[in-house]
Amino acid sequence: MIKKLLVANRGEIAVRIIRACKELGISTVAVYSEADKEALHVQMADEAYCIGPASSSESYLNFTNILSAAICTDTDAIHPGYGFLAENADFAEACRACNITFVGPSPEAIQKMGIKDVAKETMKHANVPIVPGSDGIIESEEEAKTVANEIGYPVIIKATAGGGGKGIRVAYNEEELLKGIRITQNEAEKAFGNPGVYLEKFIEDFRHVEIQVLADQHGNVIHLGERDCSIQRRLQKLVEESPSPALTPEIREKMGNAAVQAAAAVDYVGAGTIEFIFDRKSQNFYFMEMNTRIQVEHPVTEMVTGVDLVKEQIRIANNEVLSVQQDEVSFDGWAIECRINAENPFKNFMPSPGKIDMYLAPGGLGVRVESAAYPGSTIPPHYDSMIAKLIAYAPSRQEAIQRMRRALDEYVIEGIKTTIPFHQRVMANEVFMEGDFNTNFLKEHPIVEEK
Amino acid sequence: MIKKLLVANRGEIAVRIIRACKELGISTVAVYSEADKEALHVQMADEAYCIGPASSSESYLNFTNILSAAICTDTDAIHPGYGFLAENADFAEACRACNITFVGPSPEAIQKMGIKDVAKETMKHANVPIVPGSDGIIESEEEAKTVANEIGYPVIIKATAGGGGKGIRVAYNEEELLKGIRITQNEAEKAFGNPGVYLEKFIEDFRHVEIQVLADQHGNVIHLGERDCSIQRRLQKLVEESPSPALTPEIREKMGNAAVQAAAAVDYVGAGTIEFIFDRKSQNFYFMEMNTRIQVEHPVTEMVTGVDLVKEQIRIANNEVLSVQQDEVSFDGWAIECRINAENPFKNFMPSPGKIDMYLAPGGLGVRVESAAYPGSTIPPHYDSMIAKLIAYAPSRQEAIQRMRRALDEYVIEGIKTTIPFHQRVMANEVFMEGDFNTNFLKEHPIVEEK
Repeated sequence: MIKKLLVANRGEIAVRIIRACKELGISTVAVYSEADKEALHVQMADEAYCIGPASSSESYLNFTNILSAAICTDTDAIHPGYGFLAENADFAEACRACNITFVGPSPEAIQKMGIKDVAKETMKHANVPIVPGSDGIIESEEEAKTVANEIGYPVIIKATAGGGGKGIRVAYNEEELLKGIRITQNEAEKAFGNPGVYLEKFIEDFRHVEIQVLADQHGNVIHLGERDCSIQRRLQKLVEESPSPALTPEIREKMGNAAVQAAAAVDYVGAGTIEFIFDRKSQNFYFMEMNTRIQVEHPVTEMVTGVDLVKEQIRIANNEVLSVQQDEVSFDGWAIECRINAENPFKNFMPSPGKIDMYLAPGGLGVRVESAAYPGSTIPPHYDSMIAKLIAYAPSRQEAIQRMRRALDEYVIEGIKTTIPFHQRVMANEVFMEGDFNTNFLKEHPIVEEK
Repeated sequence: MIKKLLVANRGEIAVRIIRACKELGISTVAVYSEADKEALHVQMADEAYCIGPASSSESYLNFTNILSAAICTDTDAIHPGYGFLAENADFAEACRACNITFVGPSPEAIQKMGIKDVAKETMKHANVPIVPGSDGIIESEEEAKTVANEIGYPVIIKATAGGGGKGIRVAYNEEELLKGIRITQNEAEKAFGNPGVYLEKFIEDFRHVEIQVLADQHGNVIHLGERDCSIQRRLQKLVEESPSPALTPEIREKMGNAAVQAAAAVDYVGAGTIEFIFDRKSQNFYFMEMNTRIQVEHPVTEMVTGVDLVKEQIRIANNEVLSVQQDEVSFDGWAIECRINAENPFKNFMPSPGKIDMYLAPGGLGVRVESAAYPGSTIPPHYDSMIAKLIAYAPSRQEAIQRMRRALDEYVIEGIKTTIPFHQRVMANEVFMEGDFNTNFLKEHPIVEEK
């Protein structure tokens, strides 16, 4: 039985985990960098230890110091939160070696899902849909044409050695395909010393839809429905909701089942998320990746299902059976989450760290706040810029948007710039309100200061 | 259609009503006394007008000033909240005369339920159970014996002219009855100049259980289940929960139906509450009184039913049909509310008004805060001492108690004394946790500072 748990994280997720532990009667150990001496998670935990200077590589990523703190305090378990060490298989392995329960999946599962090609291959074998494409490197023009005709245009030509947006080209027909392959091969040869390219179907008009899964150590795997995270800026999620306005009940069920298969295929244990590309045109979905940890946006699922995901993670680590079975999971109402960051949304989301002079979070029916901020607290420049997650829950999507709007209006954060004005404009945008958009929403509907 | 609403109240309930209006797209007018210039409801409303000095008789109870503010601002409706003018039939009548919608029942319904004998008589005719007793004054010893045998001992002898605990005597058998009647008659003759006494069944071991009702102007009346408010100090409710740990599904249904009958009997319109005495021994319940307004403890019902009661009040005033029918009302989970007051619980709940220096409300899953407090705000000595209502919601009663405990631990209110330490002790009390108590809980289990 876990009696004492160390939270190897900071900010709102550290507070979230400490809250769950308090409700479960588990005592908590916080760790903190020198920049976080006054942080809320430090104040809330039963014990707190400094593990290094501000730089995360010397503190929140420092295996030795974190494990030393755990050992010295007789800690039974470590919860990594998200980010930092959450998807580090070596850290999970090191916990195991120290005989400390890592609240998360096995190092093997983390690794299998962490390497993207391996994950895709594993999913293919588990019959989880992946984006159609060539089986590895294209060997000839004939093969390229055949594959492209099979999967249908447009296709995307990707250099195997490429990355970061380099060595990528889209082709809308055969002419563009053959020309594109030659150019990409040449470029890749020059840039990476490897001319290999492969083909994938190019999905232009898609939503980011992901499925929350839970798996215990007794072979039970369930899903808790989907989250829609299509409002993104440079792959950074800004607004999430559950359910997704884009899914039919049939697709929801299919996607849920696929996610359960995906988790089972890697003997997954704990809370995890299977991210899918949902092609709006064909209504098909494809495996994107799996996050082998709790996610930032997990609260929207908690609101609609009533399942406390962090408590469930801890119960699973405790070798308990899942508290709900698949047929007991019910979905009720609509939840939306806005990530409130210390950034200036009208100056290219420039970070705005600093001291919060005045702080008053919104309250009332259907409003949930996850934050480590308080009056006089500081958002340090060293870490991510999240101040709070604001969640609005209501019987319908329309009411949830209205509730979110009034909660955003109510939120008082003075002393630094925040993304509240950005979210106010998104929540008042007609296309957003209609729910009919894809991951290009922010490119197509830029949020500007002038109204 | 209501486009602008004046909130004739202050504190957390004024904030609650403004929030509901914002979500409904209704603009709001706040009124305030000179003591409340800096109050949160004043800051949150679209417009705000001072209506008099601190003393509530000159401000929040001042018909003329409130109605003048409403007329000058072209207000369509007035929401009275609770307390102050909420159950003042004359005020409801004055609103009607000014052609302003009063968000509440008709003056006639307020009056019928406001006079306790009339209310009891009305309930009797509507077949709503009332505490058994004599039909008016006892005329002879024979009659007294017959009535007492009918209703069963112990009985309570009450002087019709009595009140405030005077002219009351309990009899456990015939001897005590006859003697008690003679003594009470003599005392009553001397004290009130009226020797009349009547008999009622004496219920020692009871819980305070009440039913929330909603009625529209189209003849629909529904109930939203019960609230248990047995944790009281001098008839002041301190902790409320829904559902009640004392009711069986059969009694719940019977009580709900009785409440609907009670509301229908006075052509009730709006949100109202029928309060019952629930006799733990006989498992019978009896009408106590009806509150013809929104109640302080309404949030626990909102949590378990998902119905926004204040929005519903406004919709009803707008002549809309109830948004839910009886068979659509479902009950999910468990909600507990603690009233956080500016009082010293270890010094006889002595009021502790003043300035709140530091303020940070708890957050996270299943925690709801209804408050008008903020860092630097003041609890004036002129009004009730409530700082906040803290509501914890979870799938089970046990989890709701655990959640309430961690939320109470988290709540930071500095500068004044609060009842938080009192609630922490109640939530840790084993009898409370077992749910097996009556309205004498605080007498039988005094909450003291030493642990």
